[in-house]
Amino acid sequence: MKYPNEVIIAEVGPRDGLQNEKTILSAEAKAKLIDQAIEAGFKVIEIGSMVHSKAIPALADTAEVFKLIKNKDKAELRVLVPNLKGTERAIAAGIKKVKLTVSASESHNISNFNRTPKQTVEGFKECYDLAHQNGLEVSGAIATSFGCPFEGEISIEQIEQVVKAFIDLGIREISLSDTTGMGNPKEVYTKCQYFKENYPEITWNIHFHNTRGMALANIVAAMEAGMSRFDGAFGGLGGCPYAPGASGNVASEDIIHMLHLMGINTGIDLDKSIEIAKEVKMLVGHDVDSYMLKAGKVSDLIKERPKKQIKICNA
Amino acid sequence: MKYPNEVIIAEVGPRDGLQNEKTILSAEAKAKLIDQAIEAGFKVIEIGSMVHSKAIPALADTAEVFKLIKNKDKAELRVLVPNLKGTERAIAAGIKKVKLTVSASESHNISNFNRTPKQTVEGFKECYDLAHQNGLEVSGAIATSFGCPFEGEISIEQIEQVVKAFIDLGIREISLSDTTGMGNPKEVYTKCQYFKENYPEITWNIHFHNTRGMALANIVAAMEAGMSRFDGAFGGLGGCPYAPGASGNVASEDIIHMLHLMGINTGIDLDKSIEIAKEVKMLVGHDVDSYMLKAGKVSDLIKERPKKQIKICNA
Repeated sequence: MKYPNEVIIAEVGPRDGLQNEKTILSAEAKAKLIDQAIEAGFKVIEIGSMVHSKAIPALADTAEVFKLIKNKDKAELRVLVPNLKGTERAIAAGIKKVKLTVSASESHNISNFNRTPKQTVEGFKECYDLAHQNGLEVSGAIATSFGCPFEGEISIEQIEQVVKAFIDLGIREISLSDTTGMGNPKEVYTKCQYFKENYPEITWNIHFHNTRGMALANIVAAMEAGMSRFDGAFGGLGGCPYAPGASGNVASEDIIHMLHLMGINTGIDLDKSIEIAKEVKMLVGHDVDSYMLKAGKVSDLIKERPKKQIKICNA
Repeated sequence: MKYPNEVIIAEVGPRDGLQNEKTILSAEAKAKLIDQAIEAGFKVIEIGSMVHSKAIPALADTAEVFKLIKNKDKAELRVLVPNLKGTERAIAAGIKKVKLTVSASESHNISNFNRTPKQTVEGFKECYDLAHQNGLEVSGAIATSFGCPFEGEISIEQIEQVVKAFIDLGIREISLSDTTGMGNPKEVYTKCQYFKENYPEITWNIHFHNTRGMALANIVAAMEAGMSRFDGAFGGLGGCPYAPGASGNVASEDIIHMLHLMGINTGIDLDKSIEIAKEVKMLVGHDVDSYMLKAGKVSDLIKERPKKQIKICNA
């Protein structure tokens, strides 16, 4: 089994984690979490979205959040932008990187953006050009890459149409997203292998949701296919609007814990990542899908050396 | 990536799931769950343990449970036995298969059984012989194969000593257990590959706990190493005595869901397996670590075709 020596985990909790939370955190609280993530060693952080405040109230203050971050230069801080206006706002705020999102699934894209994927990416040209002219980096993200709640299976061809459109724009960094946690390891391996082999010049990132428990298995499959960049969200926040009560993003701290056990370097201090998750859980005020918070690290268990003799005929 | 076409899932919920539950189910309730599992297509079920009623009160009525099962002949029904007395009770009850458990870790074995692994397996000789003479099948299980809360890492050599001792007894079916959910996919692959290659005559089974979220990832790694038999517990019951509040066994329904998505046949009706988990959750009266219960199947999501337009800039 071939795994990378190093993996980059992007902390997307401030955006994909917080956007659906009932509790809206203050800009100060969000900036503090982001600075803690930088302190923990995260080199890539998605700090928010530049969308209409009515669309996602929880992220309406993203420009303010960026302003309050103390250690801006120590990590790549990006925001999701849906259109030209969002791009303009990102530039005005001094943010250095924007992410453009479109769905591989036509139904899902129309549901979210009232346009076909093709129309959306064509509309991104002005966003890309403006960002580029202003010295910003631009990445792309393809939602529903591993399944769509409307269409079911999403083919490689559907994803590839968007990949090619992004490349035509000038984009060289693309994230494939399992938006609703539908992907399985076999499909993940097949798709990741295809894109890694056919588009080796692209910086690939994969974004998994743990809605059906398969995120860590999917990450392992993606790594076997050559992928080495993944999104995670502190505390496994995010939920799923299509499955009320279900979990959302895979928890950053759970990914890091597994990778470190596998001897894969992330450059992130796992203990600090866990502390962030604890704080987030307290701030949002509900249980979260984080195994580190529920059970702790393997090394914690060993360190404590259980003294009590527990007579259990375990197998 | 090479996966098996077929996988056998053993339902161990009645034993490893229920043994630590505060709510003690009646023999009738347990027998009913087991008959439902048989009806769902499970071909291997661990129905209980023949241990002293004071040791594990929840399983004290295992002989009675066996008696009440209606479709005994439609599945392999096994019980865990710790000693000769347990073996005698299994024989007296008419049970056809027993499982002998020992830990690869000396510390863990002493904590559980007051003996070294070697002493335990030597003590099993009389159990094996008696069972064999009475026409019962005997399998072995090696706890802490993927980590020990006392000793930390467990080496292949430690496991192999027990494997050899089991083989010397006459055992040809062995389960390697991640008793406290400490295993990671890289280690799992390495160990499974070693034992599959060096002991191809053994029927191997792997038992994972999802305490730290890695069970499904570990199952994928084990399958890649050639393993095709796994334990699961309805509803992901079991907990972890070393990590209060943490989850336990990997949920049978979560494994089956993932395998079916991967095109791997289990012979089990996933919907029926999910119904069993729902019933178990109601009987034990608390939340359970089951993604099928929290989020439902991928196919449920697609079937419902979300009508409401949900404007979310998901990535």
